[in-house]
Amino acid sequence: MSERRRRRRSASPRDREATAGTIPQLPWKQPRNPYPPMNILSEDQVETIHRASLRILSELGIELMSAEGRDLFAAAGARVDAATQVVRIDPALVESLIATAPSGFTLTSRNAARRLIFGGDHMAFGLVAGPPSVHDRINGRRSGNLKDYETFTKLAHHFNAIHIIGNQVCAPVELPANTRHLDTYSANIRLSDLCFHATAIGAGRAVDAIEMQAIARGISVDDMADDPGVTTIISVNSPRKFDDTMAEGLIAMSRRGQPVAITPFTLMGAMTPVTLAAALAQQNAEALFGIALTQLVRQGAPVFYGSYTSNVDMRSGAPAFGTPENTKANIASGQLARRYGLPYRASPTNASNAADAQATYETQMALWACTLGHANLHYHAAGWLEGGLCASLEKLVIDVEMLQHMIAFLEPVVIHEDALGFEAMRDVPIGGHFFGTPHTLERYETAFYRPMLSDWQNYEAWELAGSKTATERATDLWQRALEEYEEPVLAPDRAEALDAYIRRRREAIGSGEP
Amino acid sequence: MSERRRRRRSASPRDREATAGTIPQLPWKQPRNPYPPMNILSEDQVETIHRASLRILSELGIELMSAEGRDLFAAAGARVDAATQVVRIDPALVESLIATAPSGFTLTSRNAARRLIFGGDHMAFGLVAGPPSVHDRINGRRSGNLKDYETFTKLAHHFNAIHIIGNQVCAPVELPANTRHLDTYSANIRLSDLCFHATAIGAGRAVDAIEMQAIARGISVDDMADDPGVTTIISVNSPRKFDDTMAEGLIAMSRRGQPVAITPFTLMGAMTPVTLAAALAQQNAEALFGIALTQLVRQGAPVFYGSYTSNVDMRSGAPAFGTPENTKANIASGQLARRYGLPYRASPTNASNAADAQATYETQMALWACTLGHANLHYHAAGWLEGGLCASLEKLVIDVEMLQHMIAFLEPVVIHEDALGFEAMRDVPIGGHFFGTPHTLERYETAFYRPMLSDWQNYEAWELAGSKTATERATDLWQRALEEYEEPVLAPDRAEALDAYIRRRREAIGSGEP
Repeated sequence: MSERRRRRRSASPRDREATAGTIPQLPWKQPRNPYPPMNILSEDQVETIHRASLRILSELGIELMSAEGRDLFAAAGARVDAATQVVRIDPALVESLIATAPSGFTLTSRNAARRLIFGGDHMAFGLVAGPPSVHDRINGRRSGNLKDYETFTKLAHHFNAIHIIGNQVCAPVELPANTRHLDTYSANIRLSDLCFHATAIGAGRAVDAIEMQAIARGISVDDMADDPGVTTIISVNSPRKFDDTMAEGLIAMSRRGQPVAITPFTLMGAMTPVTLAAALAQQNAEALFGIALTQLVRQGAPVFYGSYTSNVDMRSGAPAFGTPENTKANIASGQLARRYGLPYRASPTNASNAADAQATYETQMALWACTLGHANLHYHAAGWLEGGLCASLEKLVIDVEMLQHMIAFLEPVVIHEDALGFEAMRDVPIGGHFFGTPHTLERYETAFYRPMLSDWQNYEAWELAGSKTATERATDLWQRALEEYEEPVLAPDRAEALDAYIRRRREAIGSGEP
Repeated sequence: MSERRRRRRSASPRDREATAGTIPQLPWKQPRNPYPPMNILSEDQVETIHRASLRILSELGIELMSAEGRDLFAAAGARVDAATQVVRIDPALVESLIATAPSGFTLTSRNAARRLIFGGDHMAFGLVAGPPSVHDRINGRRSGNLKDYETFTKLAHHFNAIHIIGNQVCAPVELPANTRHLDTYSANIRLSDLCFHATAIGAGRAVDAIEMQAIARGISVDDMADDPGVTTIISVNSPRKFDDTMAEGLIAMSRRGQPVAITPFTLMGAMTPVTLAAALAQQNAEALFGIALTQLVRQGAPVFYGSYTSNVDMRSGAPAFGTPENTKANIASGQLARRYGLPYRASPTNASNAADAQATYETQMALWACTLGHANLHYHAAGWLEGGLCASLEKLVIDVEMLQHMIAFLEPVVIHEDALGFEAMRDVPIGGHFFGTPHTLERYETAFYRPMLSDWQNYEAWELAGSKTATERATDLWQRALEEYEEPVLAPDRAEALDAYIRRRREAIGSGEP
């Protein structure tokens, strides 16, 4: 008998449950990966990359467009070329500087129950960050604005599989560029109680995030130095350059004890040589440089080892994600992060222009790689489209479904006498079924992960219901999620203090302060 | 600078290459998985399942609807209940019987270059098998016919990521049921030179496959016993029943030295208790029973350990695939197969009604699990839709793309001095790019995997080209592949011998022979 013959696809009265009430979700809980990380590099290969990166740091050096940063390196014994701003560091100094970075840390928002642990087997999934455009199937593609920003932020709060808000899910372009970070931080804090990323373009924006999160938590900025509340990505201007705004952002964050993710922008063939070996060596050199700087700013400052290594289409120069090369890079970079005992940041992203099968298989390749590589922070994990140029509401829903699949998969298998069900097997006749046995009835409500997006009706029922693809059903789901969204209460005194801070800063920035 | 800012998405003259010539493909080569398998069960848990399955075999037994099979078990010392046809086997006998099954074997078609190795780190991806329906975006959904059968078979031959043809990609329902296997075998052999699966519903159909493959290879059936050429899936009628046709098919195949994949049909909550522990124990008992029977028929007969364990939707009873539970089962079953030193068969399948994001994420979950679990035969790997009720041409193209991604990912990372590109890094200025360096120019053509389906154009160019989703582009690709398909030459004398065999068998079956 062929495998399809005995499939049961009939509708039953219990079907009605699926449409009642709220969207099925896993509870809010930071996932952990109980399995050993995957290693695709031998220990020798890891050491070869390590040595190659030390050679890059020692012989070629990194341009650091921050006088303060260069002074710190010079004082520690690095060779600084005043004319070119290039800093060269000998291997022993690199090793001694990075040694003080901690292997883990926490991030705490205004709701202590949302505290995130970074390090070890802990994972956190972040909302997409940075796109100029936004797309959904109802309103089409447009430049992002504050309303869109708020929509995504509400969904990040609503969906339990999203654990942290990234740096500007979209740029609210209608607002003044030099103060819009105040509006987005305010939205983050009002509309959700998740941790969020600062915008570390210069020191001022980073400090505003720290101040505002401290107000939201009702603690001082000094207290927050020992109990961090915001983080950010420090992108390296690869090859081998830390620009002034990023360097200032790094210094501002590390000085105040807030974690940063040093992330080289290493697209193979464009910003690095075309081989994975070279890209990893360059990524590693650039990451170690930034990590060293955090430790010079504040010994013991929390820091992520970040990877963003992928390839470009060598015919057009277009970046690609979720490729086989990106998959390897995401796993191998985890080995490098562990080589240095550092929490690891990576991204399950894609380069598709639509929330379609390509977006899905590229994201899945990257998501598995980030998971197998034991990434602690999965940045851009929900809503990313077009290689990062667009935030998509449908893709966000598809991503949440995929993240929930991964979270449920990572729940360890339980095997004890009771679970083995010998009595149930004895009691069900040969060729019979287990639907009505006590063993089943006791467990069926929670035995299996229940998806929110997958449709398992038979074809005829699915057709009758409108033949909706997963992407079309995702449109229904984000609308329903917005209806069901509840704004988390913020104590009135803290809300007032935040408003006062924002007013003060708007005036100050308006009169030319940083 | 945010990560999106420096993305390069311009078109270049080299773009034109992508549209010229044939569909980009990886060369035909059986993939190998160079990494250790993933283990999600502890060794203790594996032994617990092993012992639970031995208890099932000893105390509960399996119904075997084949007198010949029961006689073989009885002669070996098993306890056979004549009234119920239930066979109970003591643990020591199970262990001694399965011990003679080989850890690997080959399968050879009429083209020796297409020989497949099963066992160890070798992988093979199979065409979907068994659906009654067929779908594509041009012709819609319909019952399968011989023309559809031929279309899928041509595509399986054309796409290098498909290594083996399954058992009837669709049933050619317009042909007489008792001879249509002759037509499908004939199509397999004429239109492709891949190995294929027999239809093992009864002995006659299995023997026809063996005879016809032997003719196609120009060897005798006796020769083929030592050098197999066809395989098949033996599905268990779970719980705990081998029906007469499947048992006869198993016996006919094993007697002639052709490998079978013993695959319990263990959907958790329906055909097994609702827990993964129980499902694995029952699967294991049923698989070991079938494996034992192959060894009683012919000591040393090649056999796969098969797993098809997944869950059902407990609200409707509908089967589901690519779920977190199926993901765990696919990985854990690999541990069981290795426990017995047997080649492992699993399936990267899904339960979606459309070739959409759901079909893609479910398939990816299962594909990663099959790969991490070191499945040797990935059955149903291309074209499966609707939980196996439909073969889809668009899904086949999406699957081939995903399989190629996986194959390219599994190519080991090369790290030697030259690949590290130190000179290239030295020569490119800080903040510059590597597009034109000699290191890049020497390697760019082959440095990265080149997809056939993924579209990495920028949004504006993609929109100008018609805003086609991956599923829509897949329609273009299968049509183009059919245009480019070339029928592999079959020596005229063998073609004539095959025709003569088919004529003979049609007459014999028409006059009532099996």
